[in-house]
Amino acid sequence: MQLSPSLTQLIEALRCQPGIGPKSAQRIAFHLLERDRQGGKQLGHALTKAMDEVGHCQSCRTFTEQAVCDICSSVKRQDSGLLCVVESPTDVLAIEQTGQYQGLYFVLMGHLSPIDGIGPKEIGLDILESKLQQGGINEVILATNPSVEGETTAHYIAELCHKYQVGASRIAHGVPVGGELDLLDGMTLMHAFSGRRAVNQN
Amino acid sequence: MQLSPSLTQLIEALRCQPGIGPKSAQRIAFHLLERDRQGGKQLGHALTKAMDEVGHCQSCRTFTEQAVCDICSSVKRQDSGLLCVVESPTDVLAIEQTGQYQGLYFVLMGHLSPIDGIGPKEIGLDILESKLQQGGINEVILATNPSVEGETTAHYIAELCHKYQVGASRIAHGVPVGGELDLLDGMTLMHAFSGRRAVNQN
Repeated sequence: MQLSPSLTQLIEALRCQPGIGPKSAQRIAFHLLERDRQGGKQLGHALTKAMDEVGHCQSCRTFTEQAVCDICSSVKRQDSGLLCVVESPTDVLAIEQTGQYQGLYFVLMGHLSPIDGIGPKEIGLDILESKLQQGGINEVILATNPSVEGETTAHYIAELCHKYQVGASRIAHGVPVGGELDLLDGMTLMHAFSGRRAVNQN
Repeated sequence: MQLSPSLTQLIEALRCQPGIGPKSAQRIAFHLLERDRQGGKQLGHALTKAMDEVGHCQSCRTFTEQAVCDICSSVKRQDSGLLCVVESPTDVLAIEQTGQYQGLYFVLMGHLSPIDGIGPKEIGLDILESKLQQGGINEVILATNPSVEGETTAHYIAELCHKYQVGASRIAHGVPVGGELDLLDGMTLMHAFSGRRAVNQN
């Protein structure tokens, strides 16, 4: 038995989502048809709208429908002189949720990976370079992921900063708050030891 | 920081899918925007189309865009005199994949569950009753799930069949092929013992 064409097409299309295999796609399709047609319709509209309208911020490359995103438009943030470089828009969200950082962002949308053909231009480092050239930035905070590619990217950007005499710093790696030492990997522990700080004894 | 409105709306809408929480929805939205806009657009169209067009077969209640589905339209299957009652369209798919059954289906789209307000009418037993009344069916195969509700539903339909003097049978429950006895639950083992058959000694 063949399922009806629209249904087959829907199940096939649902699989474009990461983590959704053939069985999950079938389950989702039947769930939406049986119990949540309204939700399914809304999802259809939201997808079409987002895929058409959402582009990249001209200034920081994050996702936005405007030419320049809200953070980049903020005068207060522009005056901070801080620029935090992250790999993806989700990192921006995570940092914003702490409520502590009040500077600008630059979203690479990936990391340097020459083997996959991703060079400096693909992750927008030409835009970043012209930002550094323009001035107004006192410190670049490198918050790429602590992976080999992330470290390489951080290193590359640090050299760019050096070229334009802008200060660069790397976020600290170490034991996460609430983490337990015996469950940590060796690399993190090594970072925690090499990044140790003198205890302030008042 | 607030995400852009279209993006927030998309992440919210993605959560209508079963098994997709806030983190997965975010991951899917960013994946589609970053790497698969084409797939996202196709999914949007497929969803809108399916939600609008897919309805229920007038004869067996499964999902179809036509008034009567392909299986119900087949003369060969109509002549078989067999009607298999299942709980959901996925069960039809599973049975069809065996390629052994050549009869018609009746899809309940659920099971009797008075506590949730699902009575005989909600699962289309009035349509099934008129089918039994019309004649042409020699045997009803009850293939509802072996859960308490499935068994109750099977029992209810068996009584309907008795009323119209149509034979009713229940699919066998027992040890699945390739299964191991020591890993099975007691209920299945009990079914396997009570449903034992004499070995044919030629």
